[in-house]
Amino acid sequence: MTSGRFGAAAAVMALLAGGTAMAADNANNADSTATVREQVRAWRKTHEKQIVGELAGLLALPNVAAANIQDIHKNAEHLTGMLRQRGFETRILTAGEGSRPAVFGELTVPGATRTVVFYAHFDGQPVDPKGWASDPWKAVVRTGPLGTPGTREVDLATHEGPLDSEWRIFARSASDDKSPIVALLAAVDGLRAAGIQPSVNLKVFLEGEEEDGSPHLTDILKAHAGLLAADAWVLCDGPTHQTGRMLLYFGARGVVSLNLTVYGPLRPLHDGHYGNWAPNPAVLLTHLLAGLRDPEGKVLVPGFYDDMRPLGETEKRAAAAMPAIEDDLRQELGLARSEADGRLQDRVMLPALNLRGFRAGGVEGSAPLAVPTDAWAGIDFRLVPNQTPDKVKQRIEDHLRREGWHIVAEPPDRETRLAHPKIVRVTWTQGYPPARTDMDTPASRAVTAVVEQATGGPVVLVPSLGGSLPMYMFNDTLQVPIVGVPMVNYDNNQHGNDENLRLQNLWDGIEVYAALIARLGEEWPSPP
Amino acid sequence: MTSGRFGAAAAVMALLAGGTAMAADNANNADSTATVREQVRAWRKTHEKQIVGELAGLLALPNVAAANIQDIHKNAEHLTGMLRQRGFETRILTAGEGSRPAVFGELTVPGATRTVVFYAHFDGQPVDPKGWASDPWKAVVRTGPLGTPGTREVDLATHEGPLDSEWRIFARSASDDKSPIVALLAAVDGLRAAGIQPSVNLKVFLEGEEEDGSPHLTDILKAHAGLLAADAWVLCDGPTHQTGRMLLYFGARGVVSLNLTVYGPLRPLHDGHYGNWAPNPAVLLTHLLAGLRDPEGKVLVPGFYDDMRPLGETEKRAAAAMPAIEDDLRQELGLARSEADGRLQDRVMLPALNLRGFRAGGVEGSAPLAVPTDAWAGIDFRLVPNQTPDKVKQRIEDHLRREGWHIVAEPPDRETRLAHPKIVRVTWTQGYPPARTDMDTPASRAVTAVVEQATGGPVVLVPSLGGSLPMYMFNDTLQVPIVGVPMVNYDNNQHGNDENLRLQNLWDGIEVYAALIARLGEEWPSPP
Repeated sequence: MTSGRFGAAAAVMALLAGGTAMAADNANNADSTATVREQVRAWRKTHEKQIVGELAGLLALPNVAAANIQDIHKNAEHLTGMLRQRGFETRILTAGEGSRPAVFGELTVPGATRTVVFYAHFDGQPVDPKGWASDPWKAVVRTGPLGTPGTREVDLATHEGPLDSEWRIFARSASDDKSPIVALLAAVDGLRAAGIQPSVNLKVFLEGEEEDGSPHLTDILKAHAGLLAADAWVLCDGPTHQTGRMLLYFGARGVVSLNLTVYGPLRPLHDGHYGNWAPNPAVLLTHLLAGLRDPEGKVLVPGFYDDMRPLGETEKRAAAAMPAIEDDLRQELGLARSEADGRLQDRVMLPALNLRGFRAGGVEGSAPLAVPTDAWAGIDFRLVPNQTPDKVKQRIEDHLRREGWHIVAEPPDRETRLAHPKIVRVTWTQGYPPARTDMDTPASRAVTAVVEQATGGPVVLVPSLGGSLPMYMFNDTLQVPIVGVPMVNYDNNQHGNDENLRLQNLWDGIEVYAALIARLGEEWPSPP
Repeated sequence: MTSGRFGAAAAVMALLAGGTAMAADNANNADSTATVREQVRAWRKTHEKQIVGELAGLLALPNVAAANIQDIHKNAEHLTGMLRQRGFETRILTAGEGSRPAVFGELTVPGATRTVVFYAHFDGQPVDPKGWASDPWKAVVRTGPLGTPGTREVDLATHEGPLDSEWRIFARSASDDKSPIVALLAAVDGLRAAGIQPSVNLKVFLEGEEEDGSPHLTDILKAHAGLLAADAWVLCDGPTHQTGRMLLYFGARGVVSLNLTVYGPLRPLHDGHYGNWAPNPAVLLTHLLAGLRDPEGKVLVPGFYDDMRPLGETEKRAAAAMPAIEDDLRQELGLARSEADGRLQDRVMLPALNLRGFRAGGVEGSAPLAVPTDAWAGIDFRLVPNQTPDKVKQRIEDHLRREGWHIVAEPPDRETRLAHPKIVRVTWTQGYPPARTDMDTPASRAVTAVVEQATGGPVVLVPSLGGSLPMYMFNDTLQVPIVGVPMVNYDNNQHGNDENLRLQNLWDGIEVYAALIARLGEEWPSPP
């Protein structure tokens, strides 16, 4: 998951009003899932050191995609071996120059009519070893989070008895995303040991360059469309809710970023001698920016909201059902109020314009008493269905032109400057669109039902993450339902130093993934 | 002069319409001044190496006030010696703890009824010797500006014949302000050699800490008010017009600077997950700033212009008479237009709000996709009579409060943040007020007339510099007319590396100061 902690962006969700999962006529399904859970749990309890050992072995392999493609190949070979041990057919998938290997595995189940692909990535963010308490490429078990009094290291080799479920495994990718892979394979092991037949044909797709921006993902999905054909995808990436509850996400906002530079005089000018005469680019930019967005978050660019698809009733109910975490958040963040006084979950399902920074004329304390030569601002747009980066770019640039701005792509030369009184350099990131799987499709309902059955209670249902994931690559390319079923603790230091996984989250992940494998085909039978 | 190059802030000024200086009945005065000029010029031509040598000796003394008070004492002793050679009575003046010495000198003239004080400062800006082409404390003569092809060093010790008036002397304070001191004393020498009696009692006040902000100037002026009593002051600080013409300035804008910091969440927040919910301090600041000033320079704060004293007819005529330099400036600076399409000189006689910089969320290319924790902006106000820093501060803060801002002086604690939705930290520099001497007083008219007679043509008359000088310290404390009569070339690299003086400017300065000494008492006789 390339986005940071998304904790509070989701919120605890009660059962959907009139929901399908626990309806009386589905009591048998719930019982069946509970049985799967108990049997897999029993197996896990006798294999904890083995499971953690397998994870530690995987974590020992450096996996920074941007650093070394050979590292990624070694990880891919190792994963291939882990899959083959379980009887998976495997292949290494690539597409195009520079593509790092993805690992594909398939476990065909006689009689199964549904096929589900589980997605995770096995590459990790770069590390700064100096910032880590221990070697990022050597898994260390500790009794709790670092910084908590009394936390100590545990030597599993000499430890006797069950492992405390609050213990944590520290290493790069301990949570993001190697542990979901190990959980999935442990789920297969547990089901097999219990004699429980999978209900679906099982495919895994393990990406090797997600933390480098998934530059070849779409190409790989397209090049191997037949191999990857399925009825649904389950994304294992991301953390659970900060309340500790399991969560499901059905979408993510798209994103596109904008850099604006406004130009003033070719050299800084003494603001006493020229300050009322030479146009001030910082002033021009404040007016440009103030005209884009009001203080309450409303985007003032005509047409910006026109492409927005209204929320469905289920999505509205899911958002409304979330408990009020806003007071705690405001307290934590020192905020007297929030924009438009809205609920967090409602706000992040709207398209947004965030001013992420601006700069002109030097830094505090040393900005000279001058008219600056230019002024820069950075803006991120977060998009919802059916917005696209291209449409947003067009609407913003149209607006700027209507406001009298001459748009350039490169810093203007003197001739251009002399020809146009208001010049703005506009550069965009490529960006990507939003994605949202309908929460009311049979697949979405079935995944929700099985996960609720497996956890024994309501899970947090997130119609869309506020943050951005390239879910569109799956949605747009595959045209099948995609649901995120993450398992790792929200406080895992993802992307940072001392990344870690809480053991209970690993155990929960095994049970949930086992339930999905064993029960999804029954909850969601193929039409005859 | 603590402000930078003010070149274009002034502009060439034709004779005032119906001006007094060249009126027919003043032809005798003009002839008298021309005679003084010719006689002093003749003397100078035979003493050029001696004059430059005296300047070089003074330039050999390091003079950074902020660096070493002993250096300033050595300069003061040296200057005292130079004055005593010419028969001046001298005193060292200080006032209060840490006050660096000012040098006072007086040459009483029998029968003179007017007393004029010439002001210059002998301290200089700090130097970075690595940036200089030669030792800043060793005067070097070169044939022209550095960077001009063919410029070479001249060894005066071996040079025969007259000095080329385009040659330049390079050293710290060569122009700012040691050469006006030497010019003034050369003027005294030249007049004496020609047998011309001064028309005024002559006092000099040489400050030793101007480049350090004149921290004791007001105190010194007050403590020695009797000694410094005079009918007018002539300020020798500053450069002439960039056209090469002599200029006179009668005022300068005041200045006060403001720092604004607006606060958001206590830590940066992922803008996908929180971006539409957590108030964005950068956005709030853009709206605050856009509400202070429009793109054309108009300050939108109610009452801001109420204290502005309208320009007098003479001031308007002086400004209107300036030649159009704006087209050249726009070409040089790459500007398609100027604010409000106004004349430069008109614009800098208005009070101004300059946004000198802002900053939030990191720097270009690396601003994280986050809601920033705070946003800063720096603003300078340039003031005209009768604005004061205190009045401006009050009006701005009243405006902010009306706009719903809670003003704090220090970064707010969590309790304050939770209590107020819009918090802005406001810090001000002390600032100082504007000053403007009436161009229509007899003293102003007489100085103008003599300088025009001495230069033989129209001079640039600047009702007020756009930049700021602490002229108010003289105006408010002394309550006598103050006129700036600078002599050094505008392209002197004042405050920078390779500061220099063009020899012709030194020669012109000698003639103009000689004319003022010899003729001002006659042009401006004391009432009987």
